[in-house]
Amino acid sequence: MLDLIAKTRDRIPLTPAEIGTLVAGITDGRWPDYQLAAWLMAAYLNGLSEAETFALADAMARSGTPPAEPLGVVDKHSTGGVGDKTTLVLAPLVASLGIPVAKMSGRGLGHTGGTLDKLEAIPGFRVALDTAAVRRQVAAVGVAVVAQSPQLAPADGRLYALRDVTATVDSIPLIATSVMSKKLAAGTPNIVLDVKTGRGAFMRDRQRARELAGLMVRIGTAHGRRVRALLTNMDQPLGWAVGNALEVNEAAACLQNQGPADLREEVLHLAGHMVALVRGTGADAGREEAACALADGRGWDRFQRWITAQGGDAGAVARGLPVAPVQRVWRADRTAVIAAVDARRVGEAALALGAGRHRLGDRVDPAVGVLCRAKTGQTVRPGDELGVVYARSAAAAEDALAALGAAVTWSAEAVAPPPLVWEVLGGGEPA
Amino acid sequence: MLDLIAKTRDRIPLTPAEIGTLVAGITDGRWPDYQLAAWLMAAYLNGLSEAETFALADAMARSGTPPAEPLGVVDKHSTGGVGDKTTLVLAPLVASLGIPVAKMSGRGLGHTGGTLDKLEAIPGFRVALDTAAVRRQVAAVGVAVVAQSPQLAPADGRLYALRDVTATVDSIPLIATSVMSKKLAAGTPNIVLDVKTGRGAFMRDRQRARELAGLMVRIGTAHGRRVRALLTNMDQPLGWAVGNALEVNEAAACLQNQGPADLREEVLHLAGHMVALVRGTGADAGREEAACALADGRGWDRFQRWITAQGGDAGAVARGLPVAPVQRVWRADRTAVIAAVDARRVGEAALALGAGRHRLGDRVDPAVGVLCRAKTGQTVRPGDELGVVYARSAAAAEDALAALGAAVTWSAEAVAPPPLVWEVLGGGEPA
Repeated sequence: MLDLIAKTRDRIPLTPAEIGTLVAGITDGRWPDYQLAAWLMAAYLNGLSEAETFALADAMARSGTPPAEPLGVVDKHSTGGVGDKTTLVLAPLVASLGIPVAKMSGRGLGHTGGTLDKLEAIPGFRVALDTAAVRRQVAAVGVAVVAQSPQLAPADGRLYALRDVTATVDSIPLIATSVMSKKLAAGTPNIVLDVKTGRGAFMRDRQRARELAGLMVRIGTAHGRRVRALLTNMDQPLGWAVGNALEVNEAAACLQNQGPADLREEVLHLAGHMVALVRGTGADAGREEAACALADGRGWDRFQRWITAQGGDAGAVARGLPVAPVQRVWRADRTAVIAAVDARRVGEAALALGAGRHRLGDRVDPAVGVLCRAKTGQTVRPGDELGVVYARSAAAAEDALAALGAAVTWSAEAVAPPPLVWEVLGGGEPA
Repeated sequence: MLDLIAKTRDRIPLTPAEIGTLVAGITDGRWPDYQLAAWLMAAYLNGLSEAETFALADAMARSGTPPAEPLGVVDKHSTGGVGDKTTLVLAPLVASLGIPVAKMSGRGLGHTGGTLDKLEAIPGFRVALDTAAVRRQVAAVGVAVVAQSPQLAPADGRLYALRDVTATVDSIPLIATSVMSKKLAAGTPNIVLDVKTGRGAFMRDRQRARELAGLMVRIGTAHGRRVRALLTNMDQPLGWAVGNALEVNEAAACLQNQGPADLREEVLHLAGHMVALVRGTGADAGREEAACALADGRGWDRFQRWITAQGGDAGAVARGLPVAPVQRVWRADRTAVIAAVDARRVGEAALALGAGRHRLGDRVDPAVGVLCRAKTGQTVRPGDELGVVYARSAAAAEDALAALGAAVTWSAEAVAPPPLVWEVLGGGEPA
C-alpha cells in the first residue's frame, strides 16, 4: 500500500493490477483508514489518469456481490442539489410508461437533501429492502427506490465515508468512480445522469461539471451502458419546497399537474432522455410520452401504488403530509427584479431549521423547511409573498426569514430567467 | 480539522492559531489518524510556508513537558546515512573537552542505521534513561546518549509514526519541523546538524538537502539557538563498517587513532563546529582542540567511562565486540578504478543480513554486517581485498557478496575522491 500511495503522490499512474490490489484491500479491510486517507489526498491533488479512473470504477463495481441480473431497465442519478425532488416524480412517471425503475438513493448531507430522507417523511415508508424484495416490488408495480445495499460496491461505501471526513469529496475522478461504480454494479443498461452545477451544487463551476459529466459518460459507455448526462442549473433551488415533507407534497402536486413550473420542466427533460435511451427514440418523443402520462394521471396513480407497495401511507400524501406549526410568510420589502436566489443559502436555511444533517447519523425533522417561491427574473413589489418558513419555534423561523432575505440579490433592470438545462452529453440517441 | 485539511489542500496558509489547534489535537488524540494522514499528504504535496513551518515546529516543541533546563550544552543531529557512527565518537570526544553532551538518538530504519541499535550491541548498555538519570550521568561523566523521552515533543512522535506509513516522510518542511521540534524542546543552546545528501541519504538531491539545512538553521536561530548545518556526502558509506557491533568496534578504533580516514575526518569536522559554537571561536580552532583530545586518548578514555556509566561493558568494546561466524572476503575481480560505491546498496546488503529493520519493531542482529573498504577513487587489482561480509549462513553471505559487487561501478580513468563536506550553513561563528 505504501508503494501505491507513493506512486499516486509522485504522479506515477497505477496499473489496473495495482488498482485491483488497492480496491481488494479497501474491501477486505487490509488497508487501514490512514493509508487510504493519504492515498485519497494524493489522488485529490494529483488527479487520476483516465485509465486509472476506468480501472478504479471497474474494480469498485466488482468489489461486492451485485445482482445476477439488473433490477431495472433505466436508472437516474443526481449529483445533489437544493429542492431536488425529481426522483419522487420521475420514478413512478417513467414506470407508468412500462419501463421498470429500480433505484438506489442516498441521504442528505450539508445543504443538500437526499431522496431517502424525503421518502421517510411518508408514514410507514420502508427504504431498506433486500434484492429479492426489490425484484418482487418492481415486478408488481414497476418501481422501487431503496437504500444502497451493502453488497453493492462496498469499496465505494468505505471510500466515500472516508472522503467525507478527509476533505477529499470534491474530486472529479473520485466522484465519477463513486457514482459509476454503483451504477455499473447494479447492472442497469440505461443511465441518465443529472449533473448539477451552480451555487447550490457541489460542482459550482460549469466547466468542472462538464468534465465530470463527460468522464462518467465515458466510464459507462466503456462498460456497454447507454449513458446520457444533463448539465443542469443549480444556482437557485429547484421548485419551491426545500424540506422533506414539503418536497413530498410538492412532488405529489407535480404528479397532479400543479406546483412549480421549473420542477415540471426539469422532470419532463429528464424523463424524455430516460425514455429515449430505453426506446431508442429522440428525447422529444420521450418527453411527449412522459408528458401524456403526467397529464392523464398515470404517473400520479403509479406513485400511489408505489408508495403503498413500499409500506407508505399514500393517503397521507394525497391529503398533504403535515408540516411544522410555526409558519411565517416571507414578503418582499421593495420594488425590484430578483437577480439571483442563492440555492446554497436557501439549503442552509432549511438545514438550520432541522431539515438536514450536519453529519451522517444526525436525525432530520421531516416537517420543517421553506417554500421559496422567489425565482430569478421575477419583478416584485413591497408585500408580495416570496415564500413561507415552516419551523418549530418563532426564533428559528425568524432566523430562517433573515437567511432567506440574505439569499436574494436584486436588480433595477430586467433579468432573464436562467436555463434549466445547460447541455446534454453522451449518446445512445439515433442520429 | 476538516477546515484545516481543506486549507492546506487548497494552499491557504494556516495561521499560528490554527497550527496550534492542529498540534493540540495531535497531542491529545482528538484528531483521528485518517484526518492527520490526509493533512500530511496535503502538506507533503503543497508544501508549507515558512511561517507555517516555524509555527508548526514551535507548537510541536511545546506539545510535551520539556526539561526545566537544558541537559547538555551542545547537540548534534544526523539526518541518517549508511555507516554513520559519528555520534559514538563525537559525544565522548566533545565531552572530554569539558563540554557536556546529552543527546537523544533514534533507531535504524530501512537501509540506514540508528545510533541506539549500535549502542545496544554493547552488552548491558541501557538507552532508556529518564531525565533525572540523564542529568546525573551528564554531571558525572559529561555525556549521555539515550532514547527519545515520550515527554519531549510527543506531537512529533505521533506524526512521525504516521508519516512513516503514509509515504509522507520525504518532505522538507515535515522533516525540518520533526527534527527541530525535538531540538527546541530539549533546550540545548548549540546545535550542529549533519545533513546527509547522496545515494545513501534520504535526501539524494543536494539542492533539496541545502533547502532542508537552511530551513532548520532558520528555525533554530529564530528560537535563539546557535545552529550550524554541514551538508555532508552520503554517496558512499561513511567509514568501512556497516552493521551494529562492527560499527561500535570501528568507533572504538577511531577513538584510538585507527580505522578509516574518512570517519576520522568527518568526526573532526563535526567536532570542530560543535566546539566552535560553544567556545565562540572558529571551526579550525575547535577542530584542533578536538584533534588533540583524540590524539592523546582523552576521547577514548571518556568513551569507556560513558559506556560504563550507562551500564555497558566497556571492556567488551575494548576487546572488540563479537561478530557473526560466517565470514567471506570480498575481492576485486579486475584492474580498475572505483568510480562509485552505492551507499544505499551497501546499506541494503547489511539490512538483508539482519543488521537493520524493515519496519519499526523488527529485531536487529548486532553481529552481522559488512566491512566495505572500497572507496571511490581507489585503484584495485584482481584479488585485492575490498571488504568482508559477516553473516549467519553461507547463503546469506553469498547474497551479500553479490550485492556488494553490484554496489560498485568502475572506471578505466582516474577518479577524484569526493569531498566529505559540501558546505556549511548557518552562523554563530565570529567574523
